[in-house]
Amino acid sequence: MILAGDQLRIGAIIFPDMDQIDLTGPFEVLTRIPGSDFQLIWKELVPIRDVKGLVLTPNSTFAQCPQLDLLVVPGGPGQQQLMGDEGVLEFIRVQAAQVRFVFSVCTGALICGAAGLLRNVRATTHWTAHHLLPYFGAIPVGARVVVDGKLISAAGVTAGIDGALRVAALLRSDELSQQIQLAIEYAPEPPFASGTPQSAPSEVIAAVQASYKELAAARLATAQRFAERFNIQPV
Amino acid sequence: MILAGDQLRIGAIIFPDMDQIDLTGPFEVLTRIPGSDFQLIWKELVPIRDVKGLVLTPNSTFAQCPQLDLLVVPGGPGQQQLMGDEGVLEFIRVQAAQVRFVFSVCTGALICGAAGLLRNVRATTHWTAHHLLPYFGAIPVGARVVVDGKLISAAGVTAGIDGALRVAALLRSDELSQQIQLAIEYAPEPPFASGTPQSAPSEVIAAVQASYKELAAARLATAQRFAERFNIQPV
Repeated sequence: MILAGDQLRIGAIIFPDMDQIDLTGPFEVLTRIPGSDFQLIWKELVPIRDVKGLVLTPNSTFAQCPQLDLLVVPGGPGQQQLMGDEGVLEFIRVQAAQVRFVFSVCTGALICGAAGLLRNVRATTHWTAHHLLPYFGAIPVGARVVVDGKLISAAGVTAGIDGALRVAALLRSDELSQQIQLAIEYAPEPPFASGTPQSAPSEVIAAVQASYKELAAARLATAQRFAERFNIQPV
Repeated sequence: MILAGDQLRIGAIIFPDMDQIDLTGPFEVLTRIPGSDFQLIWKELVPIRDVKGLVLTPNSTFAQCPQLDLLVVPGGPGQQQLMGDEGVLEFIRVQAAQVRFVFSVCTGALICGAAGLLRNVRATTHWTAHHLLPYFGAIPVGARVVVDGKLISAAGVTAGIDGALRVAALLRSDELSQQIQLAIEYAPEPPFASGTPQSAPSEVIAAVQASYKELAAARLATAQRFAERFNIQPV
Protein backbone atom coordinates (compact mmCIF):
# COMPACT_ATOMS: atom_id res chain seq x y z
CA MET A 1 0.00 0.00 0.00
CA ILE A 2 1.23 3.44 -0.88
CA LEU A 3 -0.57 5.78 1.49
CA ALA A 4 1.33 6.16 4.72
CA GLY A 5 -0.38 6.52 8.06
CA ASP A 6 0.16 6.85 11.74
CA GLN A 7 0.16 3.92 14.09
CA LEU A 8 -3.25 2.41 14.63
CA ARG A 9 -4.03 0.05 17.49
CA ILE A 10 -6.76 -2.40 16.53
CA GLY A 11 -8.03 -5.10 18.84
CA ALA A 12 -10.70 -7.75 18.38
CA ILE A 13 -12.25 -9.83 21.13
CA ILE A 14 -12.13 -13.54 20.31
CA PHE A 15 -14.08 -16.14 22.26
CA PRO A 16 -15.19 -19.79 22.20
CA ASP A 17 -17.96 -20.61 19.69
CA MET A 18 -17.60 -17.29 17.90
CA ASP A 19 -18.09 -17.20 14.13
CA GLN A 20 -14.54 -16.96 12.82
CA ILE A 21 -15.21 -14.90 9.69
CA ASP A 22 -16.73 -12.12 11.83
CA LEU A 23 -13.09 -11.70 12.83
CA THR A 24 -11.09 -12.92 9.84
CA GLY A 25 -13.07 -10.79 7.34
CA PRO A 26 -12.23 -7.52 9.16
CA PHE A 27 -8.69 -8.81 9.91
CA GLU A 28 -8.08 -9.23 6.17
CA VAL A 29 -9.08 -5.64 5.45
CA LEU A 30 -7.82 -3.78 8.51
CA THR A 31 -4.34 -5.32 8.72
CA ARG A 32 -3.69 -3.75 5.30
CA ILE A 33 -3.92 -0.28 6.80
CA PRO A 34 -0.32 0.98 7.00
CA GLY A 35 0.85 1.30 10.58
CA SER A 36 -1.89 -0.94 11.95
CA ASP A 37 -1.29 -3.42 14.73
CA PHE A 38 -4.00 -6.05 15.23
CA GLN A 39 -4.45 -7.73 18.61
CA LEU A 40 -6.65 -10.78 19.22
CA ILE A 41 -7.84 -10.47 22.79
CA TRP A 42 -9.12 -13.09 25.21
CA LYS A 43 -8.92 -13.83 28.94
CA GLU A 44 -5.80 -15.95 28.65
CA LEU A 45 -3.22 -16.62 25.95
CA VAL A 46 -4.68 -20.02 25.15
CA PRO A 47 -6.16 -21.04 21.80
CA ILE A 48 -9.96 -21.02 21.47
CA ARG A 49 -12.19 -22.77 18.93
CA ASP A 50 -14.75 -21.07 16.78
CA VAL A 51 -18.21 -22.64 16.38
CA LYS A 52 -17.01 -24.84 13.51
CA GLY A 53 -13.68 -25.76 15.11
CA LEU A 54 -11.20 -23.27 13.66
CA VAL A 55 -8.47 -22.72 16.25
CA LEU A 56 -7.75 -19.04 16.90
CA THR A 57 -4.85 -17.94 19.07
CA PRO A 58 -5.00 -14.70 21.09
CA ASN A 59 -1.96 -12.47 21.42
CA SER A 60 -3.26 -10.21 24.17
CA THR A 61 -5.38 -10.54 27.30
CA PHE A 62 -8.03 -8.13 28.54
CA ALA A 63 -5.65 -7.23 31.36
CA GLN A 64 -2.64 -6.63 29.06
CA CYS A 65 -4.46 -4.79 26.29
CA PRO A 66 -3.56 -1.09 25.98
CA GLN A 67 -6.08 1.54 24.96
CA LEU A 68 -7.17 0.78 21.39
CA ASP A 69 -8.06 3.07 18.52
CA LEU A 70 -10.52 0.54 17.12
CA LEU A 71 -12.29 -2.23 19.03
CA VAL A 72 -13.80 -5.02 16.90
CA VAL A 73 -16.56 -7.11 18.50
CA PRO A 74 -17.43 -10.22 16.46
CA GLY A 75 -20.45 -12.45 17.01
CA GLY A 76 -21.59 -16.03 16.63
CA PRO A 77 -23.33 -18.44 19.04
CA GLY A 78 -20.70 -17.93 21.77
CA GLN A 79 -21.88 -14.34 22.10
CA GLN A 80 -24.58 -15.65 24.48
CA GLN A 81 -21.93 -16.67 27.01
CA LEU A 82 -20.12 -13.32 26.77
CA MET A 83 -23.26 -11.32 27.49
CA GLY A 84 -23.26 -12.66 31.05
CA ASP A 85 -19.57 -12.01 31.60
CA GLU A 86 -19.18 -8.76 33.50
CA GLY A 87 -15.37 -8.74 33.02
CA VAL A 88 -15.74 -8.74 29.24
CA LEU A 89 -18.52 -6.14 29.31
CA GLU A 90 -16.45 -3.87 31.55
CA PHE A 91 -13.46 -4.18 29.18
CA ILE A 92 -15.71 -3.11 26.30
CA ARG A 93 -17.11 -0.17 28.28
CA VAL A 94 -13.68 1.09 29.36
CA GLN A 95 -12.21 0.75 25.85
CA ALA A 96 -15.30 2.29 24.23
CA ALA A 97 -14.92 5.46 26.27
CA GLN A 98 -11.62 6.27 24.50
CA VAL A 99 -11.60 4.47 21.13
CA ARG A 100 -12.19 6.21 17.85
CA PHE A 101 -14.63 3.50 16.80
CA VAL A 102 -16.28 0.38 18.14
CA PHE A 103 -17.03 -1.94 15.20
CA SER A 104 -19.52 -4.73 15.85
CA VAL A 105 -19.97 -7.57 13.36
CA CYS A 106 -23.05 -9.81 13.26
CA THR A 107 -24.34 -10.60 16.78
CA GLY A 108 -21.34 -8.81 18.23
CA ALA A 109 -23.88 -5.97 18.30
CA LEU A 110 -25.76 -7.82 21.05
CA ILE A 111 -22.59 -7.97 23.14
CA CYS A 112 -22.18 -4.21 22.65
CA GLY A 113 -25.83 -3.88 23.68
CA ALA A 114 -25.17 -5.84 26.86
CA ALA A 115 -22.29 -3.48 27.61
CA GLY A 116 -24.73 -0.58 27.31
CA LEU A 117 -23.28 0.89 24.11
CA LEU A 118 -26.47 0.79 22.05
CA ARG A 119 -28.77 3.12 24.01
CA ASN A 120 -30.36 5.44 21.43
CA VAL A 121 -27.82 4.31 18.82
CA ARG A 122 -28.72 3.30 15.26
CA ALA A 123 -27.42 -0.21 14.61
CA THR A 124 -27.74 -3.46 12.67
CA THR A 125 -26.95 -7.13 13.29
CA HIS A 126 -27.57 -10.62 11.81
CA TRP A 127 -31.07 -10.83 10.31
CA THR A 128 -32.13 -13.58 12.75
CA ALA A 129 -31.37 -11.24 15.68
CA HIS A 130 -32.31 -7.87 14.19
CA HIS A 131 -35.63 -7.70 16.08
CA LEU A 132 -33.71 -7.94 19.38
CA LEU A 133 -31.89 -4.60 18.98
CA PRO A 134 -34.67 -2.54 20.65
CA TYR A 135 -34.33 -4.65 23.83
CA PHE A 136 -30.93 -2.95 24.26
CA GLY A 137 -32.32 0.49 23.52
CA ALA A 138 -30.94 0.54 19.96
CA ILE A 139 -32.69 1.96 16.92
CA PRO A 140 -32.68 -0.93 14.41
CA VAL A 141 -31.70 -0.01 10.85
CA GLY A 142 -32.22 -2.33 7.89
CA ALA A 143 -28.80 -1.75 6.33
CA ARG A 144 -25.69 -3.81 5.77
CA VAL A 145 -23.47 -1.30 7.56
CA VAL A 146 -24.59 1.43 9.95
CA VAL A 147 -22.39 4.26 11.20
CA ASP A 148 -23.72 6.22 14.19
CA GLY A 149 -21.15 8.33 15.98
CA LYS A 150 -18.38 6.07 17.19
CA LEU A 151 -20.44 2.89 16.81
CA ILE A 152 -20.17 1.11 13.47
CA SER A 153 -22.23 -2.05 13.09
CA ALA A 154 -22.27 -4.60 10.29
CA ALA A 155 -25.09 -7.05 9.56
CA GLY A 156 -24.54 -10.84 9.57
CA VAL A 157 -21.24 -12.66 9.21
CA THR A 158 -19.84 -11.67 5.79
CA ALA A 159 -21.05 -8.06 6.26
CA GLY A 160 -17.89 -7.61 8.33
CA ILE A 161 -15.93 -7.25 5.09
CA ASP A 162 -18.15 -4.43 3.82
CA GLY A 163 -18.08 -2.84 7.26
CA ALA A 164 -14.29 -3.05 7.54
CA LEU A 165 -13.85 -1.28 4.20
CA ARG A 166 -16.08 1.51 5.55
CA VAL A 167 -14.00 1.61 8.74
CA ALA A 168 -10.76 1.83 6.72
CA ALA A 169 -12.20 4.75 4.76
CA LEU A 170 -13.29 6.52 7.94
CA LEU A 171 -9.95 5.96 9.69
CA ARG A 172 -7.78 6.83 6.69
CA SER A 173 -9.25 7.66 3.27
CA ASP A 174 -11.50 6.44 0.50
CA GLU A 175 -8.43 5.92 -1.65
CA LEU A 176 -6.74 3.60 0.83
CA SER A 177 -9.95 1.61 1.23
CA GLN A 178 -10.20 1.33 -2.56
CA GLN A 179 -6.61 0.06 -2.70
CA ILE A 180 -7.44 -2.58 -0.09
CA GLN A 181 -10.59 -3.56 -2.00
CA LEU A 182 -8.57 -4.04 -5.18
CA ALA A 183 -5.79 -5.96 -3.41
CA ILE A 184 -8.34 -8.42 -1.97
CA GLU A 185 -10.21 -8.45 -5.30
CA TYR A 186 -13.49 -7.72 -3.57
CA ALA A 187 -15.92 -7.68 -6.48
CA PRO A 188 -18.31 -10.30 -5.15
CA GLU A 189 -20.49 -12.45 -7.40
CA PRO A 190 -22.71 -14.58 -5.16
CA PRO A 191 -24.00 -17.52 -7.23
CA PHE A 192 -27.56 -17.09 -5.91
CA ALA A 193 -29.82 -14.24 -4.79
CA SER A 194 -30.19 -15.81 -1.37
CA GLY A 195 -28.17 -13.59 0.94
CA THR A 196 -31.05 -11.90 2.78
CA PRO A 197 -34.54 -12.94 3.90
CA GLN A 198 -35.85 -10.32 1.45
CA SER A 199 -34.31 -12.14 -1.52
CA ALA A 200 -34.09 -15.82 -0.52
CA PRO A 201 -36.72 -18.41 -1.52
CA SER A 202 -39.25 -19.06 1.26
CA GLU A 203 -38.26 -22.71 1.75
CA VAL A 204 -34.63 -21.64 2.16
CA ILE A 205 -35.63 -19.09 4.82
CA ALA A 206 -37.71 -21.71 6.63
CA ALA A 207 -34.82 -24.18 6.68
CA VAL A 208 -32.34 -21.64 8.06
CA GLN A 209 -34.84 -20.36 10.64
CA ALA A 210 -35.40 -23.94 11.79
CA SER A 211 -31.67 -24.42 12.24
CA TYR A 212 -31.51 -21.23 14.37
CA LYS A 213 -34.62 -22.01 16.45
CA GLU A 214 -32.94 -22.92 19.72
CA LEU A 215 -30.30 -20.18 19.55
CA ALA A 216 -32.92 -17.59 18.59
CA ALA A 217 -35.05 -18.51 21.62
CA ALA A 218 -32.04 -18.24 23.94
CA ARG A 219 -31.09 -14.86 22.48
CA LEU A 220 -34.64 -13.56 22.95
CA ALA A 221 -34.66 -14.64 26.60
CA THR A 222 -31.33 -12.91 27.18
CA ALA A 223 -32.52 -9.74 25.45
CA GLN A 224 -35.68 -9.70 27.60
CA ARG A 225 -33.58 -9.99 30.76
CA PHE A 226 -31.45 -7.03 29.71
CA ALA A 227 -34.48 -4.92 28.85
CA GLU A 228 -35.96 -5.62 32.27
CA ARG A 229 -32.74 -4.91 34.12
CA PHE A 230 -32.19 -1.61 32.35
CA ASN A 231 -35.87 -0.74 32.32
CA ILE A 232 -36.00 -0.49 28.53
CA GLN A 233 -39.36 -0.74 26.74
CA PRO A 234 -38.61 -2.37 23.37
CA VAL A 235 -40.80 -0.89 20.64
CA MET B 1 -29.12 -26.76 8.01
CA ILE B 2 -31.96 -29.05 7.02
CA LEU B 3 -30.60 -31.05 4.11
CA ALA B 4 -28.78 -34.14 5.27
CA GLY B 5 -25.73 -35.45 3.50
CA ASP B 6 -23.12 -38.13 3.53
CA GLN B 7 -19.74 -37.67 5.10
CA LEU B 8 -17.48 -35.33 3.21
CA ARG B 9 -13.76 -35.12 3.82
CA ILE B 10 -12.43 -31.66 3.12
CA GLY B 11 -8.81 -30.66 3.57
CA ALA B 12 -7.01 -27.37 3.02
CA ILE B 13 -3.28 -26.89 2.85
CA ILE B 14 -2.11 -24.13 5.18
CA PHE B 15 1.37 -22.64 5.03
CA PRO B 16 3.51 -19.74 6.29
CA ASP B 17 2.77 -16.35 4.68
CA MET B 18 -0.44 -17.58 3.11
CA ASP B 19 -3.37 -15.17 2.87
CA GLN B 20 -5.67 -16.33 5.65
CA ILE B 21 -9.03 -15.46 4.07
CA ASP B 22 -8.22 -17.70 1.10
CA LEU B 23 -8.76 -20.40 3.72
CA THR B 24 -11.19 -18.87 6.21
CA GLY B 25 -13.64 -17.77 3.50
CA PRO B 26 -14.09 -21.32 2.15
CA PHE B 27 -13.94 -22.71 5.73
CA GLU B 28 -16.93 -20.55 6.67
CA VAL B 29 -19.00 -21.89 3.77
CA LEU B 30 -17.88 -25.51 3.53
CA THR B 31 -18.02 -26.40 7.25
CA ARG B 32 -21.76 -25.71 7.02
CA ILE B 33 -22.23 -28.66 4.69
CA PRO B 34 -23.83 -31.39 6.84
CA GLY B 35 -21.46 -34.31 7.39
CA SER B 36 -18.39 -32.32 6.43
CA ASP B 37 -15.09 -32.69 8.22
CA PHE B 38 -12.51 -29.96 7.56
CA GLN B 39 -8.80 -30.67 8.02
CA LEU B 40 -6.09 -28.00 8.02
CA ILE B 41 -3.00 -29.69 6.67
CA TRP B 42 0.66 -28.80 7.06
CA LYS B 43 3.98 -30.66 7.46
CA GLU B 44 3.82 -30.73 11.23
CA LEU B 45 1.19 -30.00 13.84
CA VAL B 46 2.71 -26.63 14.72
CA PRO B 47 0.99 -23.26 14.32
CA ILE B 48 1.88 -21.17 11.28
CA ARG B 49 1.44 -17.44 10.64
CA ASP B 50 -0.36 -15.95 7.70
CA VAL B 51 1.19 -13.00 5.85
CA LYS B 52 -0.39 -10.52 8.28
CA GLY B 53 0.31 -12.55 11.41
CA LEU B 54 -2.88 -14.52 12.01
CA VAL B 55 -1.91 -17.77 13.74
CA LEU B 56 -3.47 -20.85 12.13
CA THR B 57 -3.18 -24.28 13.71
CA PRO B 58 -3.14 -27.43 11.57
CA ASN B 59 -4.95 -30.57 12.68
CA SER B 60 -3.45 -32.97 10.13
CA THR B 61 -0.10 -33.54 8.47
CA PHE B 62 0.52 -34.47 4.83
CA ALA B 63 1.60 -37.90 6.07
CA GLN B 64 -1.50 -38.43 8.25
CA CYS B 65 -4.08 -37.04 5.86
CA PRO B 66 -6.47 -39.64 4.44
CA GLN B 67 -7.83 -39.44 0.89
CA LEU B 68 -10.00 -36.32 0.65
CA ASP B 69 -13.18 -35.63 -1.26
CA LEU B 70 -12.25 -31.98 -1.66
CA LEU B 71 -8.77 -30.45 -1.57
CA VAL B 72 -8.61 -26.67 -1.01
CA VAL B 73 -5.41 -24.91 -2.09
CA PRO B 74 -5.21 -21.30 -0.83
CA GLY B 75 -2.71 -18.68 -2.00
CA GLY B 76 -0.85 -15.63 -0.77
CA PRO B 77 2.83 -14.65 -0.89
CA GLY B 78 3.98 -17.89 0.79
CA GLN B 79 2.81 -19.77 -2.29
CA GLN B 80 6.22 -19.00 -3.82
CA GLN B 81 7.94 -21.18 -1.23
CA LEU B 82 5.51 -24.07 -1.73
CA MET B 83 6.08 -24.18 -5.48
CA GLY B 84 9.62 -25.43 -4.89
CA ASP B 85 8.55 -28.02 -2.32
CA GLU B 86 8.32 -31.38 -4.03
CA GLY B 87 6.74 -33.03 -0.95
CA VAL B 88 3.81 -30.63 -1.04
CA LEU B 89 3.43 -30.90 -4.82
CA GLU B 90 3.44 -34.70 -4.63
CA PHE B 91 0.76 -34.61 -1.88
CA ILE B 92 -1.40 -32.47 -4.18
CA ARG B 93 -0.85 -34.80 -7.17
CA VAL B 94 -1.69 -37.94 -5.19
CA GLN B 95 -4.80 -36.40 -3.62
CA ALA B 96 -5.91 -34.86 -6.93
CA ALA B 97 -5.98 -38.26 -8.61
CA GLN B 98 -8.86 -39.39 -6.34
CA VAL B 99 -10.66 -36.27 -5.07
CA ARG B 100 -14.01 -35.14 -6.38
CA PHE B 101 -12.71 -31.58 -6.70
CA VAL B 102 -9.54 -29.56 -6.27
CA PHE B 103 -10.51 -26.00 -5.33
CA SER B 104 -7.81 -23.35 -5.73
CA VAL B 105 -8.25 -19.87 -4.29
CA CYS B 106 -6.23 -16.84 -5.44
CA THR B 107 -2.60 -17.76 -6.21
CA GLY B 108 -3.27 -21.27 -4.91
CA ALA B 109 -3.85 -21.82 -8.65
CA LEU B 110 -0.11 -21.32 -9.21
CA ILE B 111 0.66 -24.07 -6.68
CA CYS B 112 -1.75 -26.35 -8.55
CA GLY B 113 0.05 -25.35 -11.73
CA ALA B 114 3.41 -26.29 -10.21
CA ALA B 115 1.89 -29.68 -9.32
CA GLY B 116 0.98 -30.11 -12.99
CA LEU B 117 -2.80 -29.89 -12.53
CA LEU B 118 -3.42 -27.00 -14.92
CA ARG B 119 -2.27 -28.47 -18.25
CA ASN B 120 -5.02 -27.61 -20.76
CA VAL B 121 -7.35 -26.65 -17.93
CA ARG B 122 -9.42 -23.45 -17.87
CA ALA B 123 -8.59 -21.52 -14.70
CA THR B 124 -8.43 -18.17 -12.92
CA THR B 125 -6.33 -16.60 -10.15
CA HIS B 126 -5.59 -13.21 -8.52
CA TRP B 127 -5.59 -10.43 -11.13
CA THR B 128 -1.91 -9.59 -10.49
CA ALA B 129 -0.96 -13.18 -11.42
CA HIS B 130 -3.55 -13.95 -14.09
CA HIS B 131 -1.08 -13.52 -16.97
CA LEU B 132 1.09 -16.27 -15.44
CA LEU B 133 -1.47 -19.06 -15.93
CA PRO B 134 -0.27 -19.95 -19.48
CA TYR B 135 3.22 -20.67 -18.12
CA PHE B 136 1.66 -23.70 -16.42
CA GLY B 137 -0.23 -24.75 -19.52
CA ALA B 138 -3.55 -23.37 -18.27
CA ILE B 139 -6.17 -21.59 -20.36
CA PRO B 140 -6.75 -18.30 -18.49
CA VAL B 141 -10.39 -17.28 -18.06
CA GLY B 142 -11.44 -13.81 -16.95
CA ALA B 143 -14.05 -14.97 -14.45
CA ARG B 144 -14.45 -14.89 -10.70
CA VAL B 145 -14.97 -18.65 -10.48
CA VAL B 146 -14.05 -21.22 -13.13
CA VAL B 147 -15.17 -24.86 -13.10
CA ASP B 148 -13.33 -27.18 -15.48
CA GLY B 149 -13.75 -30.86 -14.76
CA LYS B 150 -12.52 -31.56 -11.27
CA LEU B 151 -10.58 -28.27 -11.03
CA ILE B 152 -12.45 -25.32 -9.57
CA SER B 153 -10.52 -22.06 -9.34
CA ALA B 154 -11.49 -18.78 -7.72
CA ALA B 155 -9.95 -15.38 -8.51
CA GLY B 156 -8.23 -13.27 -5.83
CA VAL B 157 -8.64 -13.55 -2.07
CA THR B 158 -12.33 -12.88 -1.36
CA ALA B 159 -13.39 -14.83 -4.47
CA GLY B 160 -12.94 -17.92 -2.31
CA ILE B 161 -16.35 -17.23 -0.76
CA ASP B 162 -18.08 -17.15 -4.15
CA GLY B 163 -16.14 -20.22 -5.22
CA ALA B 164 -17.00 -22.14 -2.06
CA LEU B 165 -20.72 -21.52 -2.57
CA ARG B 166 -20.32 -22.97 -6.07
CA VAL B 167 -18.45 -25.95 -4.64
CA ALA B 168 -21.20 -26.52 -2.05
CA ALA B 169 -23.81 -26.49 -4.82
CA LEU B 170 -21.79 -28.94 -6.92
CA LEU B 171 -21.13 -31.30 -4.00
CA ARG B 172 -24.67 -31.16 -2.60
CA SER B 173 -27.39 -28.95 -4.09
CA ASP B 174 -28.30 -25.41 -5.04
CA GLU B 175 -30.75 -25.36 -2.14
CA LEU B 176 -28.12 -26.20 0.46
CA SER B 177 -25.79 -23.56 -0.98
CA GLN B 178 -28.63 -21.02 -0.81
CA GLN B 179 -29.22 -21.93 2.84
CA ILE B 180 -25.55 -21.37 3.60
CA GLN B 181 -25.59 -18.06 1.73
CA LEU B 182 -28.56 -16.89 3.82
CA ALA B 183 -27.03 -18.10 7.09
CA ILE B 184 -23.84 -16.12 6.42
CA GLU B 185 -25.93 -13.20 5.11
CA TYR B 186 -23.86 -13.05 1.94
CA ALA B 187 -25.46 -10.13 0.11
CA PRO B 188 -22.32 -8.05 -0.35
CA GLU B 189 -22.37 -4.28 -0.70
CA PRO B 190 -18.80 -3.13 -1.36
CA PRO B 191 -18.59 0.57 -0.55
CA PHE B 192 -16.62 1.31 -3.74
CA ALA B 193 -16.44 -0.02 -7.31
CA SER B 194 -12.78 -0.84 -6.86
CA GLY B 195 -12.65 -4.62 -6.66
CA THR B 196 -11.12 -5.32 -10.09
CA PRO B 197 -8.61 -3.57 -12.34
CA GLN B 198 -11.49 -3.12 -14.83
CA SER B 199 -13.45 -1.01 -12.34
CA ALA B 200 -10.86 0.63 -10.05
CA PRO B 201 -9.55 4.18 -10.59
CA SER B 202 -6.18 4.19 -12.39
CA GLU B 203 -4.27 5.74 -9.46
CA VAL B 204 -5.62 2.98 -7.18
CA ILE B 205 -4.45 0.31 -9.64
CA ALA B 206 -1.02 1.95 -9.87
CA ALA B 207 -0.63 2.02 -6.08
CA VAL B 208 -1.58 -1.63 -5.66
CA GLN B 209 0.65 -2.71 -8.56
CA ALA B 210 3.55 -0.83 -6.97
CA SER B 211 2.99 -2.67 -3.69
CA TYR B 212 3.05 -6.02 -5.57
CA LYS B 213 6.07 -5.21 -7.72
CA GLU B 214 8.65 -7.40 -6.00
CA LEU B 215 6.31 -10.35 -5.47
CA ALA B 216 5.06 -10.10 -9.06
CA ALA B 217 8.64 -10.25 -10.41
CA ALA B 218 9.43 -13.28 -8.26
CA ARG B 219 6.27 -15.04 -9.40
CA LEU B 220 7.09 -14.36 -13.05
CA ALA B 221 10.59 -15.82 -12.64
CA THR B 222 9.13 -18.93 -11.00
CA ALA B 223 6.54 -19.31 -13.74
CA GLN B 224 9.24 -19.02 -16.42
CA ARG B 225 11.27 -21.76 -14.73
CA PHE B 226 8.26 -24.08 -14.72
CA ALA B 227 7.46 -23.38 -18.35
CA GLU B 228 11.03 -24.21 -19.33
CA ARG B 229 11.16 -27.36 -17.24
CA PHE B 230 7.89 -28.67 -18.66
CA ASN B 231 8.57 -27.36 -22.14
CA ILE B 232 5.46 -25.20 -22.19
CA GLN B 233 5.20 -22.29 -24.65
CA PRO B 234 3.06 -19.65 -22.89
CA VAL B 235 0.77 -17.88 -25.35
